[in-house]
Amino acid sequence: MAHIELNNDLPGIRGLMFYRPEIEAPLNALAEFLLRSDNSLTRGERELIGTYVSYLNDCFFCQNVHGAVAGHYLKCSIDDIDAIKADFTSADISPKMKALLTIAGSVQKGGKNVTIEQVDAARSEGATDKEIHDTVLIAASFCMFNRYVDGLGTWAPQDRSFYVNRAPQRAVEGYVGSILK
Amino acid sequence: MAHIELNNDLPGIRGLMFYRPEIEAPLNALAEFLLRSDNSLTRGERELIGTYVSYLNDCFFCQNVHGAVAGHYLKCSIDDIDAIKADFTSADISPKMKALLTIAGSVQKGGKNVTIEQVDAARSEGATDKEIHDTVLIAASFCMFNRYVDGLGTWAPQDRSFYVNRAPQRAVEGYVGSILK
Repeated sequence: MAHIELNNDLPGIRGLMFYRPEIEAPLNALAEFLLRSDNSLTRGERELIGTYVSYLNDCFFCQNVHGAVAGHYLKCSIDDIDAIKADFTSADISPKMKALLTIAGSVQKGGKNVTIEQVDAARSEGATDKEIHDTVLIAASFCMFNRYVDGLGTWAPQDRSFYVNRAPQRAVEGYVGSILK
Repeated sequence: MAHIELNNDLPGIRGLMFYRPEIEAPLNALAEFLLRSDNSLTRGERELIGTYVSYLNDCFFCQNVHGAVAGHYLKCSIDDIDAIKADFTSADISPKMKALLTIAGSVQKGGKNVTIEQVDAARSEGATDKEIHDTVLIAASFCMFNRYVDGLGTWAPQDRSFYVNRAPQRAVEGYVGSILK
């Protein structure tokens, strides 16, 4: 049960947006732009950044929603996503993504943990400044989303197949206007 | 110098928004709603929550921008704001605000640090569920803003009077369309 009376039984952030509908538009616009708009980082790569940060923040709802969507885009299983979360350095992802996930992990700890050496390492693997920017903001935004979802004690379906089964629909529909979907 | 080439010399988040203008609308809409829209928490109280979280995250730019605006609304000096940041428990603020700042401090550490006892304590001091909700989201959003500003190594004016002098204008104009103001 959430820490406050939400007057609905929607899980995670959807229950919060239903409770406080004014915040839906800016939060979903942010997610839509960061995770789905045209970008040299694929949708799968961006969802993976959000998933990894949600894992580091131990947010069950966010890491499962976005992990399932990442798996959908990257055509891999939730076990594969779990393996990347647990140790991306030995995962079958590009050196550029490893460098960007390193930056995302630093952002999760706090902004000042990002070092110029981490940024230079990402650049040397081919990351553009815009990709580095977007990685930092995606990671930072999930530090908000995770805290919002868990700070108010929202509930989340525990059966992980729930998220996997919904991922294809989410990939088609996106985040805008997604409360009741 | 920022970690990436921003092609402008605006400080803090303004330089980032100028660099990536698509993110200005959702981020500023979020700040405008959380900090300035009609609310039973005053604008000063909400700015204080953001200031305190920015202080905990050691974000110089955000804690000075919002600390100065908080001081403007609350009609107190930046020294008073500094004293609240350093020890709000002994500050001259309401017991309700102390309970909400306790929750905000937990959110800063991570969403799961918020306890039902902290929420009950805020309620017993008169906080409504909506105020508790907004406190959590304000605190969570500053965990994003702070990481965005510092994760990309943006610069900030070091003379704190810069922020104090701009606060009255910011209080009038708000956050929407504020990059170049």
